Amino acid sequence: MCGACDGNANGHRAGANNTNGAFQHPSQGRPQNSPYQSVQDYLSNVGNFKIIESTLREGEQFANAFFDTETKIKIAKALDEFGVEYIELTSPVASEQSFQDCKTICGLGLKAKILTHVRCNMEDAKAAVATGVDGVDLVIGTSSFLREFSHGKDMVYIQKTALEVIEYVKSQGVEVRFSSEDSFRSDLVDLLTLYKAVDAAGVNRVGVADTVGGATPRMVYDLVRTLRGVVHCDIETHFHNDTGCAIANAHAALEAGATHVDTSVLGIGERNGITPLGGLMARMIVTAPDYVKSHYKLEKLKEIETLVADAVQINIPFNNPVTGFCAFTHKSGIHAKAILNNPSTYEIIKPEDFGLNRYVSFSSRITGWNAIKSRVEQLGLSMTDEQVKQVTAKIKQLADIRPLAIDDTDSIIRSFHTSLQKAS
Amino acid sequence: MCGACDGNANGHRAGANNTNGAFQHPSQGRPQNSPYQSVQDYLSNVGNFKIIESTLREGEQFANAFFDTETKIKIAKALDEFGVEYIELTSPVASEQSFQDCKTICGLGLKAKILTHVRCNMEDAKAAVATGVDGVDLVIGTSSFLREFSHGKDMVYIQKTALEVIEYVKSQGVEVRFSSEDSFRSDLVDLLTLYKAVDAAGVNRVGVADTVGGATPRMVYDLVRTLRGVVHCDIETHFHNDTGCAIANAHAALEAGATHVDTSVLGIGERNGITPLGGLMARMIVTAPDYVKSHYKLEKLKEIETLVADAVQINIPFNNPVTGFCAFTHKSGIHAKAILNNPSTYEIIKPEDFGLNRYVSFSSRITGWNAIKSRVEQLGLSMTDEQVKQVTAKIKQLADIRPLAIDDTDSIIRSFHTSLQKAS
Repeated sequence: MCGACDGNANGHRAGANNTNGAFQHPSQGRPQNSPYQSVQDYLSNVGNFKIIESTLREGEQFANAFFDTETKIKIAKALDEFGVEYIELTSPVASEQSFQDCKTICGLGLKAKILTHVRCNMEDAKAAVATGVDGVDLVIGTSSFLREFSHGKDMVYIQKTALEVIEYVKSQGVEVRFSSEDSFRSDLVDLLTLYKAVDAAGVNRVGVADTVGGATPRMVYDLVRTLRGVVHCDIETHFHNDTGCAIANAHAALEAGATHVDTSVLGIGERNGITPLGGLMARMIVTAPDYVKSHYKLEKLKEIETLVADAVQINIPFNNPVTGFCAFTHKSGIHAKAILNNPSTYEIIKPEDFGLNRYVSFSSRITGWNAIKSRVEQLGLSMTDEQVKQVTAKIKQLADIRPLAIDDTDSIIRSFHTSLQKAS
Repeated sequence: MCGACDGNANGHRAGANNTNGAFQHPSQGRPQNSPYQSVQDYLSNVGNFKIIESTLREGEQFANAFFDTETKIKIAKALDEFGVEYIELTSPVASEQSFQDCKTICGLGLKAKILTHVRCNMEDAKAAVATGVDGVDLVIGTSSFLREFSHGKDMVYIQKTALEVIEYVKSQGVEVRFSSEDSFRSDLVDLLTLYKAVDAAGVNRVGVADTVGGATPRMVYDLVRTLRGVVHCDIETHFHNDTGCAIANAHAALEAGATHVDTSVLGIGERNGITPLGGLMARMIVTAPDYVKSHYKLEKLKEIETLVADAVQINIPFNNPVTGFCAFTHKSGIHAKAILNNPSTYEIIKPEDFGLNRYVSFSSRITGWNAIKSRVEQLGLSMTDEQVKQVTAKIKQLADIRPLAIDDTDSIIRSFHTSLQKAS
């Protein structure tokens, strides 16, 4: 079984036909001894995962977030059109409007399944089921930190309550997930005991959460791989980004056999948030291009990010994966030369897959004559390579003194070209 | 040997004395069966690494970057004060001013060693040595992509040139590093052959570069671990962030025995950049708190990021590790309650280590009565828990209708308190 192409032999052939090396299937096209050509694990789901999109739950915990009903509907519809498999909503117990909004979004008739995320107790579970959701996501803290300073319950109480609530939710014909919180600071044996019990009780998914954002990819791989051998149900994963590892951790979880990844648009959530939807797409289109391109409308990503950024009044970060303003801008002379020959020299992602364009910067002191030659041609002018090198020297001289706009550089090129014509 | 505390037994005791669980040494304090308690690898350098800060080289390749001499000096001095071990500068061959700036920065008398980064040829190496740098970073593309579409040289030519240039740089009494470019899409046997040859020629470091940003932590671990068995010299690593894994990849490289990590402030560089200095600090202070806190002036981080953000005219991303505006903001009722009891419940990083503060948000529909109780106390008012729950319900009601400012919430609390006083 080949995780990267969802076990579909046609995926291999499609990969082989792709002329852009950056997107070739790991077993195709790349140098045979490349470290990139890693052997796929038997349990890996990198080419067969589902997204639980939590902008309307985790995202509402972002400092700036206030979503009115109209905004929630817009975001839910946009995510559904993008192709996420699940949309998770704030607990209906949080406030009266939260309850009403759950019902409203359940009534939209979206393709995506609608979930809500509640504390693991009977009162919350009943409110959740009453909204008409497709699934209820139960959560309870299992680390010593949270058991001592948050809810104050012991593991025996947690397991007993969990089994009662799970039985209730199942009896209502609704999907149920059981997740620990702060899983990576919980006692491993406690965790596995609990997960084994809820698996036997018939949950659809168990959830692993790096609630404080401290896990590394190797820790994630180890825990999920162990859990994969203990439970039969699906495994959902949730990674906070406090130490910058949320995307890599999601990838490591899928490698170890996780089936679902939680995301939010731009990663918004408590503190500095969780695995961003766009960042996960950037990672997974490189690992499993066929799966990602056939399941998600990537060209909608920028629109959704803009919608959410406007709703919570933030700027899209300059360095955002894929949609940051400079994600496909090439500047140094060495890079520009190679990109102009073949974009996959310095691009692992094709901007056109996301409906975006690349840009070769040529107005700086670190530019090179290949970039300027390309610009000369774009301007419809004709010069020998020797002449291009001369005008490049002029441009670098001025760029040493002050920042150059495109106009400035174009003027230098045009004026040099005019002087050449006069001379000849 | 314990990587996380640099082999120093005192480090363990220091960790054990730390009352904040988030910072405890992996072998201390955490639940004995926690997945966090990973066994340290023999080769791991997570508690013993050096930073090659490349804001003034990789960072100059960022779309918006134009650094005049004065700005370069300010940035170099700030990085030196922060405690980075190396500062890397743009090639002196890029432009006349680049050459002069190299000389100027070498003349500042900083504690950090000064490097410049040049193509692997004799002309560039001579210019580099002439600036007075402490070390020369040689680079050449080794992937089939770059060999075909960039410089057009074969591996035999690359090795022959490399050995000549390395011999020259060494003869001048200057440190020398040899790096491949696009290492993860290069033929593994070619790579190892080349690294073995330059190691035998006496380079100080070899460099591994994920130039296109496509590597995952497991690929990084595998390659660096293999390389660690082939060369005796130090191993430098350089990770682009196109797929959001640059911080995790740096961590994986150190776990596998790498010795040096390239960073830039805010991660600025070609496209959406490389491992950010602040993000690496966020990751490493969790993995190796004693090492990080004793080697770097973390309270200077925000100042340096502001300096560079202003110089290249960007906003610090809302979700930037550590210094993003919401990195230590807690909002949902469950989180707020626990944080007020013990910050390490939901914080793996202590804001005070970076000279920053936490903030518990209380003006939203997802707030809880514990957060409001804390605010009531901050306002110097007195209420029973039952009364706090009543005013919390009022606050949530209004927060369901529109976004609340702190002032709005305070007014509701004060007016409720006044009505209580009148009633009694």
